[in-house]
Amino acid sequence: MDSLKSRRTIRKYQQKDISDELLNDLLVSACRASTCGNMQLYSVIVTRDEAGKAALAPAHFHQPMVTEAPVVLTFCIDLHRFTHWCELRQAQPGYDNFEWFITGAIDALLATQTFCVAAEEQGLGICYLGTTTYNPQQIIDALRLPKLVFPIATITVGWPDECPAQTDRLPLEAIVHQETYHDYAPADIDRLFAYKESLAENKQFVLENAKETLAQVFTDVRYTKKDAEAMSKALYEAMKGQGF
Amino acid sequence: MDSLKSRRTIRKYQQKDISDELLNDLLVSACRASTCGNMQLYSVIVTRDEAGKAALAPAHFHQPMVTEAPVVLTFCIDLHRFTHWCELRQAQPGYDNFEWFITGAIDALLATQTFCVAAEEQGLGICYLGTTTYNPQQIIDALRLPKLVFPIATITVGWPDECPAQTDRLPLEAIVHQETYHDYAPADIDRLFAYKESLAENKQFVLENAKETLAQVFTDVRYTKKDAEAMSKALYEAMKGQGF
Repeated sequence: MDSLKSRRTIRKYQQKDISDELLNDLLVSACRASTCGNMQLYSVIVTRDEAGKAALAPAHFHQPMVTEAPVVLTFCIDLHRFTHWCELRQAQPGYDNFEWFITGAIDALLATQTFCVAAEEQGLGICYLGTTTYNPQQIIDALRLPKLVFPIATITVGWPDECPAQTDRLPLEAIVHQETYHDYAPADIDRLFAYKESLAENKQFVLENAKETLAQVFTDVRYTKKDAEAMSKALYEAMKGQGF
Repeated sequence: MDSLKSRRTIRKYQQKDISDELLNDLLVSACRASTCGNMQLYSVIVTRDEAGKAALAPAHFHQPMVTEAPVVLTFCIDLHRFTHWCELRQAQPGYDNFEWFITGAIDALLATQTFCVAAEEQGLGICYLGTTTYNPQQIIDALRLPKLVFPIATITVGWPDECPAQTDRLPLEAIVHQETYHDYAPADIDRLFAYKESLAENKQFVLENAKETLAQVFTDVRYTKKDAEAMSKALYEAMKGQGF
């Protein structure tokens, strides 16, 4: 499947809609992904209206893809539908806890990624918005998510209007361990990150940010400890607030 | 992509190995999945040895796929490798928290599902083991996972030796919401779950368990509140124990 290897994230889209027929066909494929106990513990919110995109934009730090893509999809952990079914069937559900939050996240993410693969196979481009777990409460409010429903992945989808270079990846030996986890000696880290550190764009990144190393760009600029601790608190509280 | 729609989980495998070449090729495809900030916050542990499978089997409640499949893959959230790189580059990492646990889980699960799609396209069969989040500590011990590494998905992989019927799925309207979440009236739940409740195998399931409704089979037999609360506690403690 060459499209899996040649793929790239697409952030610029043509001014061209995605038909309901195609979108639904892709969602049917997504729903064939593996799911715990065949419970399908997820929902997908489709945002096409300008007003809906404008409502989501602040949660995603106004990244332009949100308002420029024809379709924004928010994949949610959903224990509400299954719980509601149980309650209507004289059954006592016990799905309002951390185990089922994580199980629902797994279910939702397998469906999300299957959607993405199917969409790219049809020539569409997608972009994951990492901001979903930064500002979950804003998304919960904008999409009117009830208790036991939680946004875990947002993707923008559209017909590509760019063809960026593929980004680098670590060599496979950095990721794959045989039989047990093999820890990395300093020399391993040097070797495995050498290519990434050698890239002109990354050297430029270090220079622009007046840092000594690429890692410092991550820790001091892009993803700081302070931000992560504040986001952890907000994420945990939003999870609790949704009833988990 | 017809294989996405016609897929089924495979639990019985031929006594035939998967070559390193094919496995690595599939893992390369998996690593092209979207990843937060191109940080690739995951590791994959490949278990092929009998001893390794035997060590994992108890954590997976001795499901036969674990010892019978030629390959077992444990996909892990991995903040350790990135943190180690930061520490060797005079950078102060802040990835030992809930936000990055969830971000790592998203990264790992997108790679896992991409692997599965690629594997099925090559004629292989896969099975997700939901037990991974039930007994994480046993898996952490068996695979010798260091701090900031956490198992989030296990799949068994092999050449299919069965072709089971496809399982049912809820109608698409059960899963997809336009613009905002639309809650389910009791009549909606009746309609959306009618097909599932009508299936002979599910009626048999109710009968065998001496229950009144299919939902009660889930709440009283398969996934009880009591088990979920114990598993939530163990999962949370294992997460904390791994340093998040």
